[in-house]
Amino acid sequence: MTAVGIASGRVSAMADGLTGSSILKIAGDVRALREGGAEVCDLTVGDFKPSEFPIPAMLLSGIEDALRKGETNYPPSSGMPSLRAAVRAFYAEWLGLDYPVESILVAGGARPALYATYRALIDPGDVVVYPVPSWNNDAYCHMVEATPRPIITEPADGFMPTRESIADAIRGARMLVLNSPLNPTGTAFTAESLGEICDLVLEENARRTDDRPLFLLYDQVYWMLTFGATRHVDPVSLRPEMRQYTIFVDGISKAFASTGLRVGWLVGPPDVVAKMANVLGHVGAWAPRAEQVATAKLLGATAELTAYHDVMRKSVQARLTALYDGLIALKHDGFPTDAIVPMGAIYLSARFALIGGRLENGTVLRTNEDIRRFLLERARLAVVPFDAFGSREENGWCRLSVGAVSLGEISAMLPRLREVLQSVKPAR
Amino acid sequence: MTAVGIASGRVSAMADGLTGSSILKIAGDVRALREGGAEVCDLTVGDFKPSEFPIPAMLLSGIEDALRKGETNYPPSSGMPSLRAAVRAFYAEWLGLDYPVESILVAGGARPALYATYRALIDPGDVVVYPVPSWNNDAYCHMVEATPRPIITEPADGFMPTRESIADAIRGARMLVLNSPLNPTGTAFTAESLGEICDLVLEENARRTDDRPLFLLYDQVYWMLTFGATRHVDPVSLRPEMRQYTIFVDGISKAFASTGLRVGWLVGPPDVVAKMANVLGHVGAWAPRAEQVATAKLLGATAELTAYHDVMRKSVQARLTALYDGLIALKHDGFPTDAIVPMGAIYLSARFALIGGRLENGTVLRTNEDIRRFLLERARLAVVPFDAFGSREENGWCRLSVGAVSLGEISAMLPRLREVLQSVKPAR
Repeated sequence: MTAVGIASGRVSAMADGLTGSSILKIAGDVRALREGGAEVCDLTVGDFKPSEFPIPAMLLSGIEDALRKGETNYPPSSGMPSLRAAVRAFYAEWLGLDYPVESILVAGGARPALYATYRALIDPGDVVVYPVPSWNNDAYCHMVEATPRPIITEPADGFMPTRESIADAIRGARMLVLNSPLNPTGTAFTAESLGEICDLVLEENARRTDDRPLFLLYDQVYWMLTFGATRHVDPVSLRPEMRQYTIFVDGISKAFASTGLRVGWLVGPPDVVAKMANVLGHVGAWAPRAEQVATAKLLGATAELTAYHDVMRKSVQARLTALYDGLIALKHDGFPTDAIVPMGAIYLSARFALIGGRLENGTVLRTNEDIRRFLLERARLAVVPFDAFGSREENGWCRLSVGAVSLGEISAMLPRLREVLQSVKPAR
Repeated sequence: MTAVGIASGRVSAMADGLTGSSILKIAGDVRALREGGAEVCDLTVGDFKPSEFPIPAMLLSGIEDALRKGETNYPPSSGMPSLRAAVRAFYAEWLGLDYPVESILVAGGARPALYATYRALIDPGDVVVYPVPSWNNDAYCHMVEATPRPIITEPADGFMPTRESIADAIRGARMLVLNSPLNPTGTAFTAESLGEICDLVLEENARRTDDRPLFLLYDQVYWMLTFGATRHVDPVSLRPEMRQYTIFVDGISKAFASTGLRVGWLVGPPDVVAKMANVLGHVGAWAPRAEQVATAKLLGATAELTAYHDVMRKSVQARLTALYDGLIALKHDGFPTDAIVPMGAIYLSARFALIGGRLENGTVLRTNEDIRRFLLERARLAVVPFDAFGSREENGWCRLSVGAVSLGEISAMLPRLREVLQSVKPAR
């Protein structure tokens, strides 16, 4: 994320070196193509099309009720007491996690909760370890002047880090950042794989003699969206000792297709959370009050939640499965495509192994960016290569996000994809 | 705002040194007293009681409409195009300011806009100049490691800075932060006083040979709330050359009693605003989408805005006038109170010159904090001394905020105040 170029005196060095989201730039390409009248299967945005994925009816009516009752003034800086209590009960009921209210801090989305965690824990030069591909850790490291220590992951591991891959990296580090189910891959930890990593964190902390522990930032914003046999796991349930080192980040954005409502939270040790509350308070990234009141009601409504998720999970899974099946069918027919069975979130890891491929006009596809443009321009299929998530390998792996498309759009795209793949002459 | 104490390795040095709002701590005292059954006239919070100050009906229905239409997904990172266009037109119509849409960045309140400005402009060690009393600049300086250069202001100047008071301070500084109408004083710049300061900024920038200008952060979040003969003034209207150096911060929080809705914006030079958009995007402090859509409609509804403000301004002014008149009546009767004629915002500068005063039990009031506690415990009048806004003088000047009280509560408090003031034996 660190930009090249000469610093401009008009802004701070931090701001000058910070780049915006490359996903948003890709979204600009899609918009331009659509404005030209093209039908595009847009799998780029980690968001939901409201017509395909509406928010829970109870959330909508809850916001309206709250506004009409005058819930329009400042919420308390740490969040509405009703919402903090609701998150506490929700975690106890659904995850078996028992935290006091003082452990819960409400934020204006999961994103400010991530930012507050980085700001509250990281001193300049501190090492932050995270797997790639993953979302936005490079930008956060830049913003707090952390030393990033990205861990390369393998398709065979579902792009999840393993005990082996992080064992050396966490030595002396300040924070390990994990996300499961993982954006951008749609894969998830098993109890075994996460448990082994927790053991490493505990061993590292046991070795330390100063008062600066290794923290685990555990982003579980997609935890309610798992498929098939996948069961969400978390560090504190697996290893209770992890409680003093773990910050959970979560929110309604993904679980309830509510990215525009701006309600998230974090859960962690009360001493650290109190400091995060100060940071977030001065940043002012609070969730709107009526949305907080409505979320508190929703989290307590177990039957409604279950009914909503029965539908939502099926809708997400149907799309992911259609994409997965389509890509695997192409693979069986000899095309250079691949995909990883989706475990959670709204993403599919898909590969278009077209590096070195030659188009009819003689052009050779040399980079992930070449592949992205080729798929967009020829198949009108918009995807995000893992480059946007910190990967550096030119191997054609991409994130396919299904929140903003219908099943029909996917079905209509697959034949277009087959046709354009036929036009590529493979690398020798 | 920088806390004392040994750094804890559990958090970053920045977070460890950051304290929460002292106003919130005072609010805790008020809550405790009320829970004990006492009737308190609470003039501490810079907020609105919704039953006294409801949001515009059009804003409420606009949010409901937007939610029902599915405005529930991510807003664009820089804000909904409709809201950016509406802010542009609103500034042109009401303030005569002509900015392109690229100059406008939407944020989740005015507070994240302030934070983004500090983060995007200030490098560690940069000098930031601001008058005291003022709101939160000490905390923001701490967060970005700026060198704060607070300017002491005088009651005779309505606690506003003057050309004379800032002339030396801005030499070599990176940013000057001004707020008018001013929180906590309720006073405002005149065209003459602000114009003279702008001339200084222009002279300073004309002298500079590097590419690091002196910026002016102009917080005008209360600009729609002025009283009597006071007319809001701004640097760019007074001195068009100031455009390249000025960042405006604004929002609906105060002007429309909508602190809980989290919609704010900033306006500035497009090159700088583009960098602020990156900062704010990664922080994730966005305004909720439905609230953005509804705000866009509200800002264009000139007749509704005018009607709403006719009522709101009268309500605020009636409360401020009742307090002012009450304190001046006490002064005329020989009590050590004073106040400054309110010009704008929701605040009154009031003085309780009780330092050295002796209570019946022999206790001597030695600090602003002693006075605050005395007024709260004896008169059940809750105020915030200017200490909370960076002042260091023990002189009894306080902020009285009227957004969360009724006229009746003020009328009921004034006799209590008179009675307890009679019980203080003045300093010799």
